[in-house]
Parts: sequence; C-alpha cells; structure tokens
Amino acid sequence: MLRKSYFWLLFLASSLLSEEAYGGNPPNFVVMLMDDLGWGDLGCFGEPGRETPQLDRMAREGVLVPAMYASAPLCSPSRAALLTGRLPVRNGFYSDNDLGRNAYTPQDIVGGIADEETLLSELLQQAGYVSAVVGKWHLGHQEKFLPLQHGFDSYFGSPNCHFGPYDDVTTPNIAVFRDNKMVGRYYEKEFDFPGHVSNYTRLLTEEATSFIRARAADAKPFFLFWTPDSTHAPTYADVQYVGKSGRGRYGSAVQDLDAGVGAILDELDRNGLSNNTLVVFSSDNGAALVSKTQGGSNGPLLCGKQTTFEGGMRVPGIFWWPGTIPAGTTTDQVWTHMDFLPTFLELAGVALPQNLTLDGLPLSNTLLHPELHISRSVFLYRGNLLMAVRDGPYKLHLWTWATPPHLLEIDDDFCPGQRQPNVTTYNQVNHTDNPILYDVVADPAERYQISNTSSVYKTVVPQLLALVEQHVNNLQLAEPQLNWCDDAVMHWAPPGCEELGRCLTPPPSAPHLCYWDH
Amino acid sequence: MLRKSYFWLLFLASSLLSEEAYGGNPPNFVVMLMDDLGWGDLGCFGEPGRETPQLDRMAREGVLVPAMYASAPLCSPSRAALLTGRLPVRNGFYSDNDLGRNAYTPQDIVGGIADEETLLSELLQQAGYVSAVVGKWHLGHQEKFLPLQHGFDSYFGSPNCHFGPYDDVTTPNIAVFRDNKMVGRYYEKEFDFPGHVSNYTRLLTEEATSFIRARAADAKPFFLFWTPDSTHAPTYADVQYVGKSGRGRYGSAVQDLDAGVGAILDELDRNGLSNNTLVVFSSDNGAALVSKTQGGSNGPLLCGKQTTFEGGMRVPGIFWWPGTIPAGTTTDQVWTHMDFLPTFLELAGVALPQNLTLDGLPLSNTLLHPELHISRSVFLYRGNLLMAVRDGPYKLHLWTWATPPHLLEIDDDFCPGQRQPNVTTYNQVNHTDNPILYDVVADPAERYQISNTSSVYKTVVPQLLALVEQHVNNLQLAEPQLNWCDDAVMHWAPPGCEELGRCLTPPPSAPHLCYWDH
Repeated sequence: MLRKSYFWLLFLASSLLSEEAYGGNPPNFVVMLMDDLGWGDLGCFGEPGRETPQLDRMAREGVLVPAMYASAPLCSPSRAALLTGRLPVRNGFYSDNDLGRNAYTPQDIVGGIADEETLLSELLQQAGYVSAVVGKWHLGHQEKFLPLQHGFDSYFGSPNCHFGPYDDVTTPNIAVFRDNKMVGRYYEKEFDFPGHVSNYTRLLTEEATSFIRARAADAKPFFLFWTPDSTHAPTYADVQYVGKSGRGRYGSAVQDLDAGVGAILDELDRNGLSNNTLVVFSSDNGAALVSKTQGGSNGPLLCGKQTTFEGGMRVPGIFWWPGTIPAGTTTDQVWTHMDFLPTFLELAGVALPQNLTLDGLPLSNTLLHPELHISRSVFLYRGNLLMAVRDGPYKLHLWTWATPPHLLEIDDDFCPGQRQPNVTTYNQVNHTDNPILYDVVADPAERYQISNTSSVYKTVVPQLLALVEQHVNNLQLAEPQLNWCDDAVMHWAPPGCEELGRCLTPPPSAPHLCYWDH
Repeated sequence: MLRKSYFWLLFLASSLLSEEAYGGNPPNFVVMLMDDLGWGDLGCFGEPGRETPQLDRMAREGVLVPAMYASAPLCSPSRAALLTGRLPVRNGFYSDNDLGRNAYTPQDIVGGIADEETLLSELLQQAGYVSAVVGKWHLGHQEKFLPLQHGFDSYFGSPNCHFGPYDDVTTPNIAVFRDNKMVGRYYEKEFDFPGHVSNYTRLLTEEATSFIRARAADAKPFFLFWTPDSTHAPTYADVQYVGKSGRGRYGSAVQDLDAGVGAILDELDRNGLSNNTLVVFSSDNGAALVSKTQGGSNGPLLCGKQTTFEGGMRVPGIFWWPGTIPAGTTTDQVWTHMDFLPTFLELAGVALPQNLTLDGLPLSNTLLHPELHISRSVFLYRGNLLMAVRDGPYKLHLWTWATPPHLLEIDDDFCPGQRQPNVTTYNQVNHTDNPILYDVVADPAERYQISNTSSVYKTVVPQLLALVEQHVNNLQLAEPQLNWCDDAVMHWAPPGCEELGRCLTPPPSAPHLCYWDH
C-alpha cells in the first residue's frame, strides 16, 4: 500500500534494466495459456502425484510465481485482459444485461474484441515481431474479431470452447481455423475425439515448434501465444497418455500438455533461442471444480472457476528465460496477466502508446531481480461488478457469490465440499458496509476471517476502501461486447467451408439479449 | 491389492539390497519428527510463500514422499507407533473408556509405553547404536516410561505438550529433562516464552548437532530422534524469526525449524557423515486447523489433526541420503511411520525379533529404487475404532467423525470451511453397511465420492472389506495404556527437582478414568 515504494522501484528500474541484462536484442515472447488448469495441478505447485516433469523442470530453471492472478474467473474476459493489459470492464469483455454475471463468447455471441482496443500482438507487430496464436482464441469468432485482424500473423486453432452439443443441428461443431479459414471441425474427421482421445494437443504443439523453427530461420523476433484447451471439459488427451495418469482423464490431458511444454522448451534450446526468449506458463482461470473428475485442483485455495475467491482467479505462474532470469527461484511479486503487455514492451524497448490506460504494470525488474517487488493492487471483477481487491497480503471482499441455488440443485457446485458462512454465499451478497478481510499470504485458503473488531481490520479496511474509491472514480467503462446473442452468427458457414464442401445453413437472424445465469 | 506383487518385490528386495548399495557400514538414522506441522506447510509441498529453503533443499537432494501417513491423528499414539512399528491398538497407546476417542498423554496420564513393547531404539541399541531423543517424548512421563528406560542413551527435552495452564497450581509447568532428571521447566527462567519467543528450538538444534559431532568422534553408528514441538500451539520461535514470516507466528516457528533442519544436514556434511546417514523428515499428524492462525496448512487435504481424513493423517515426508538414494525424485510408494522400524533394521542388517508383529513394512528398496513400489494397506484408526482403510489409490471410510457439536459451539472446528454432507459428520457415524469410497490419488481432497452404483465401487469395496476383515481377525489388542488419569502423577516433583530446589507438592492420589471428549 505504500505507493512511494512503487515509484521508487520504477525509478530504480531504469537503472537496473540495462540492455546488458538480457543481451540487447528484442527478446522473443512465448505465452503458454492453459484452459481451466488449476493452481494445484502442477507438481511444482504441490500436486501430490507429481505428474508434470516438464513444468517442474521449467520451474527449476525459472522463476515460480505463486501469486499470479487471472483478470477474470472465466475464459473470454481473462484472455481479452491478457492481450489488452486492461480489465474486462475497460476492454468491453463483459455484459451489463444483469449485475455481476460471468459472460463469455459462446458460439451465439455477436460481439468480440473491439477495433478500438490495442492488443499486445498489434504493438509487437508494429515493432517488427512475427506473432502467432496456436490454440483457443475466444475473443470473438466472427471474421472481424479473428486474430489476423488483431495483430497476429498466423492462427491455428478454434475460436470457441469445444463443448457441445455436437449435433450440427442446434449448434454447429466448433470450427478449427488456419488463419482466416476453417480447415475442419472438432469432433469430425480431422480432430476426432472418440472417448476423450485426440491428437489435437499434439497438433498444437507441432504448430508451435514449427513456428519457432521458422523464426529461427528468418531471424525475426516473435510472439507465440500457445493456448491449448484440453483441460477444459470435456477433457481429452493423446492416446499415449490414456490410462497413464493417477488423476484420470483430466490427468492424462495434463500429461499431454506437460509434454507439449517440454517440446516447446526443447525446440527453443535446439534452435539456440532460449537465451533470448521469455516464456511464461499460466492458465486463464482456476480449475473448474464443477467439472468434478473432469476438473483439476486449486490446491489449498477456496472454490474455483466462476468465482472471485482465490481458487477462481489465482493461477499457476512460471517464467523461464535461462541465463537472464535466475533459475530455481520464487518471487513473492503479485502478478496479473495484464502485466504481460507492459512488461514485454519494456523488455522489447517499445514505448507504450500515449493515452492507453492499462491495468497492468511493467514488472521486468522483479523477474531480473527476484528480491525486488512492487506494491500494487489487484481488482477482482465478475462481469461489471467489483467483487474484491487484493493489496499487500490483504484481500477484501466487497461482494460474494459462490454457487447459485439453481446450479446447486443439479449438483453443479463451484465450491464442492467448501462452505464458509456469509462468504461462499448462494446469492449475490453486498458486504460493502462491512467487508470481509483475509490475509491471503498467511491464509491463502481464505479460511480465517480477520475480525472486524481487530486493529488490523480497522487500519487496513479504510486504506483498501480508499484504493477502491480511487479505482472506481478513475474507471471509464467500455461499451459491453457480450450483451447480444444470435443463433445466426454461429459457425454454420465460416470462411473456408465452401472449399471443404462443409457449409451448414444458418437459421434466420434473431438477435436477443444473452442470458447469463450466474 | 495384488498381494502377489508385494511378495515378489520382497523377494526382489533381497537381491537388490546389496551392501554395495549403501556402503556396507550400518548407516546412521536421523528421524526429524515435527509437531502438528501440516502436509501443506513446506515449500516443496506447495506452500505458496515458500518459506522453507532448507527443507526444499532436502527434497531437491532427496526423495519426496507425498503419501506418508502418520499412524494416528494425534501426538502420543502417532509417536508410539513410529517407535514400535505397530498400530496404537497393538502397542497400547489408546483408551477403551469410550468408542473411537483420541487419547494421548497429558500430564495427568498414569500410563505410558509398556515394557513389553520393543522400540526401534532398543533394537538399534542391541546392535551397537548410540541413540538420543532431542525434543518432545510423549510416550509417558513417569520415570519408567522415560527414554533411557526404552533404549535411548540420552534425552534432552520435555515428555509432555507445552500447553497450559501454566500456573504451577492446578498444573505444574512442563518439565524439561536431561536424561532422567528435570533441568528446568517451560515458561520459567531457562526456557522462557514471553510473547511466543523462545530459544528452545535453537537449543534442540544445538543438542542435535553436538550429538552428531560426538558420534563422528567416537565412530559409533547412531540413531537421533529430533522432535521439536514449536509448531504445536502455543507456537514459538527464536527472536530472529519474529515478524519475518508472511504466515505470522506459526510461520516464524516453521522458519526456525527449517533453519534447524539445515543446521543438522550441514553438521552431517561437515563431519563426513552424510553418505552414511539416512535422514527422514515428517510430522506426528496433520496441521491443527482448530488452532486457526496458530495452526498450519494441510494443503488441499480434507480437515486436520484429530480426524482420519487425509488432512489429519497424511503428513510431510522427505528422505535424504546423498549418494545412496536418488536426488530430486518423488516416490509414489505409500509409507507409514511404522515402516521406519523394519526399514531401518533392514538397512542396518539387523534381524527382526521373532514373534514381533509389526504393522510396518521394510521399504528400503523403494528408496534405493524409486521406480519400485510395494502394494500395501494402511489402516486408519481413532483410538480403538478402525475408521478407514487405504489400499492402492482407494480410501474407504467405515466410520466418520469430524468436529463434535460441543466443540463447534465454541468455534473449535477440525475442518474449518470444509463441509461434506454425510462425511464431515458432527457425530460418529457408522458407514460399514454402505462405506464411503474415494480415489485419493485422483482426489486427495476427498471431495468426489465414488458412487456406490458405479462398477468401480462394486469391484473395489468388497476387496477392501475383505482386507479389513482379515486385519480385524488377526488383530490382538494390547492392554490400553491411556485409560487412567490422576492429578498426583503430574510433574509436581520429578527427579532432579530437589537439586534445583523446585519441587512442588502433589495433591493426594485420586485415580479416575480419563475423560476423552472426542
């Protein structure tokens, strides 16, 4: 909470962050962003079965970040925030159809990433980088929203989530794109998923390693955004991992991803690129505990995906840059995905555009010098509702909402086995007049409320509320992109379907306000 | 559950476990047993603050055991089982005053470890080892129960828990012994605890390193049982750690212990003993979540101390023996503390006494060759009641009992924030007719019950019930040692008090059945 130290450290940054520190050339960037992978799913984060040897190696050779926050407790807004460096309420990836709803980009969503938004890919492209998305996009599937229209040079993957129905009648099967054209569909011949088995993660890994080899050959700096989705239900894995995990289908998917991580790091090594490439591994949100045995683990953290408790928003974080950032260390710096944009630009020596309001901070120094850390606040939103704030070791819940009653009734629980009276509430509860305070360093499980009669509470809460007030007063909300739905915009007949002879007939357009039930 | 593979591996053991494997000389043994330290309290087990650099180094240089089980969910029976290799029901460390109660050795306990029991210390002493206890004993505090009467050559520490009252009126302050004589009392001049600050862990560390130096000088094989108690509430730490942990007082105690672990490993190195010393680090039971901010973390595991859920009985486990057991590996072998006795004897080449029934298994091979593992069952008891059994990945709850209503009323919760209907029950519930099954490899949090209509359930449960039946039929219960209490047996006037001029006057003897309320 001492803003002074933040400015002092930023000042210090300019002297410490010399070109010498990382070789001088603009470094390459690889962001590995998983889907619904939880904080507790990696051996190096404590998963008892230790089934992630490559990620554990990445941590041994890099910097572990136990306090990495996603910017939303679910997929699309989290991903949009990572690429814009801005909160979903600022970049438009929310809905105001109702209060505090988790909106995303299903197939019938009309919106997507606005042209007005400046993406990390665009800024790096302008600086001469070659950029690729390999995997899930999820920033809108209509043509104007696709990656090549937003700073990426190539794209292989699907724009949507791969859940059903898969009948090509009520919903077309998910399209897989190469650049701006569909090249096939999930659950069809190219990307078959009989019994949760698929070669798709391996294909995404091969795309990534090909891209790296091509960059080694053309000697251009690059940004690779590797976003496999196999740990999102329904999970899938390559046949070689089936039955190999003690953790069932989900564990097999993790093993498959872990092998992919290893292959990408190896490819960087093999092409002499590791000493000039910053790799970061993370996940879009906490594990979806509602998916039960198809969902992962958030370790000791409270609840999971869809919630603003630690289990919903604190995600794995590992940075890797051999020879530049110190091996085998852990940073206590609090990170958010929104810090990637300013941090990467700082490392690449690219100036930030004027008038661009960011929620992320440039944190290169805390990587190069893990003994440093910068004070900062993290604002935790659900849709258009500010639910909580973290600052220093403290987390203040202004609103709470765990599993709504209609989902509990069908045993879809965001917090299975976890119950905190007045905290894991079944309905939206406004605590603003008497907010709930935790010390999430001492108590990452959000188990022991700090009493509102304690001197800590009386000192800390007014400070945090002042930060909230300042944040809210300075916030300019974007036009919400996730309000309108229309069955006609689904991928019945995406570009490329004619060549494949696989166009479906869309229904008549019938735009309506999307219904976000929680 | 394949007993065949167990026998096959035992057979394989004799061929693989050659003297060559560990140098031939009888190795030294160091058991570091913490008090109420939880599975999730170590950086290498996922604690987000990573405040245990020495333990993390021990894991990097040794073998991590994510599936190490204590033999009881609380102190005295757990410790008695470790030293005898036998379940508390077999070695007498239980009470049958009532069903399934957690009994231990408070100051007014009449009983202690029976002379008929054969302790690891006795077997090693007969084989020429020099043995020491440094720290908490807890196997009975009357003279006949003290360590020197049970195979140890020296003793420095307290026989009891260091909680209050500390008034020397209703209860004498806890005595600290050297060998058979009191040398002071906790909370008095020698071992002062103003504000949770004490040099006591450092004293225990210095005792341990002195013992190691003396053994290096006399060249005798040794067994050191290092049992500091500073993470048991009320926690304490050396002044240098006060305010240094993000985890509060409890974290400071952990930092102090971590430094002690480092000092002991360094002392072994400095004296050229590391290549002939097997060190194991563990804890007597899960973290006491009821102690709130004075208690630790069981990571993702369910509940804590006092319960037979994973959080109560699964504890940290690290083995260290540089050059002999492989560095930086993780074993999926399921261990119990009761395995230490047969494993150590196997490594020392000492034959087990005939007619000694053990619940532990010799597991040296799985340490020397972490790719091996031996199938085994673990029977989880609360006092005289068999609560659950683990075999392979499965855990079957026959009875459940979490926090009793009278403790919940005063907010003393063994499972704060955790509620599993029909599992974390407030009363003793007998599930024998329809037991609760979990896969604790896939689901270590015991969150997702395996449906009793599933084929897995229908296959596994009869097999586990058969194992239970076999176990129960072959079990010969010992005479219970923890039934009788008497205020007169407290440490009013222990041996040595005359020399110190600090004898107190005991009340008249009034033996009565102890009341174990849960």
